[in-house]
This record gives sequence, C-alpha cells and structure tokens, in this order.
Amino acid sequence: MYVIMVYDVTEDKVSKVLKSARKYLNWIQNSVLEGEITEAKLFQLKKEISDIIEKDKDSVIFYVLPTKKNMVKDVMGILKKEQDFFI
Amino acid sequence: MYVIMVYDVTEDKVSKVLKSARKYLNWIQNSVLEGEITEAKLFQLKKEISDIIEKDKDSVIFYVLPTKKNMVKDVMGILKKEQDFFI
Repeated sequence: MYVIMVYDVTEDKVSKVLKSARKYLNWIQNSVLEGEITEAKLFQLKKEISDIIEKDKDSVIFYVLPTKKNMVKDVMGILKKEQDFFI
Repeated sequence: MYVIMVYDVTEDKVSKVLKSARKYLNWIQNSVLEGEITEAKLFQLKKEISDIIEKDKDSVIFYVLPTKKNMVKDVMGILKKEQDFFI
C-alpha cells in the first residue's frame, strides 16, 4: 500500500515524530512523508506515533491508498530532498 | 477528482497561499488542505499558487486522485476544524 503521512504536532515532538516516520517513509516536505509500506509496518509506525503524540493536542493523518498507480503528484516550486519522485 | 495539497513556503507567503487554497479546498491541518475539485478549478488554483510562490524557494505539492473512494484516511489525535471527515 502507499501512504502519505502529514503531521501537526507541538514543537517538542516534531523531531521524535520525524525520526520515527523516517524509518518507514520518505521525507517529502515540512511535515509530510510518503512511501510504499506494508500493512505490518504501517501498524508499527502508528504504534510508535501513538506513543509519542498527545491525542488532545497533536494531529497525525495517514492517507492510505492501495497503490500509488492512480495518483498523480504535481510539484510546484522546488523539489525538496529525499524525494521518491515518480512522475 | 480529489486533491490533497501540502505546502512548504516561506512565512511571508503562508497566508496568501492559504487564502487562495481555501477558496477551493478544505483546510485539514497546518499546511494541508484537501477536497473534491474540478479539473478547471484545480487549474485555476494552480495558477493562483504559481503567482504567489517563488519557484526556487517554495514547494507546493498536489496529490491528485480520480476519486477518494479508494483512499482510507486515518486520523490519530485531534481532528482539527473545518474537516471534511469521511471515514
């Protein structure tokens, strides 16, 4: 499956969330990561994130697609580093 | 079509980008908007964004899906306002 993860967490948790997410996904842009991931790994990632964030303050969203095949990714401006660019 | 838009722009442009994007999409989280949009409106939105951003400094990504039908949106933590929540 293919996942786009976006996070909006308090500053003290940003580096922890990022460190955890980077083990599984590619960093795309400030607060955005994406990548191919197995269901088991996604479960693991969610568990890690759940241990880091405060559920009444932070927000992390996973957009989960069965495949990236039908998605078009349109980048305006610069391509940040570490991108898994696929258009 | 369904679009997830993420932006990473210099601070002086954040409110302009947000104001423009909000005319077409729903604000979801810091730097993230999403929503159903027609091809014509998306073209218009991209034109507006293109007029605001500096292509060597800023980055705006549009993930374009033919439909949101196959996408699962998994929210951890709080749901920010203005969400078009569909799970």
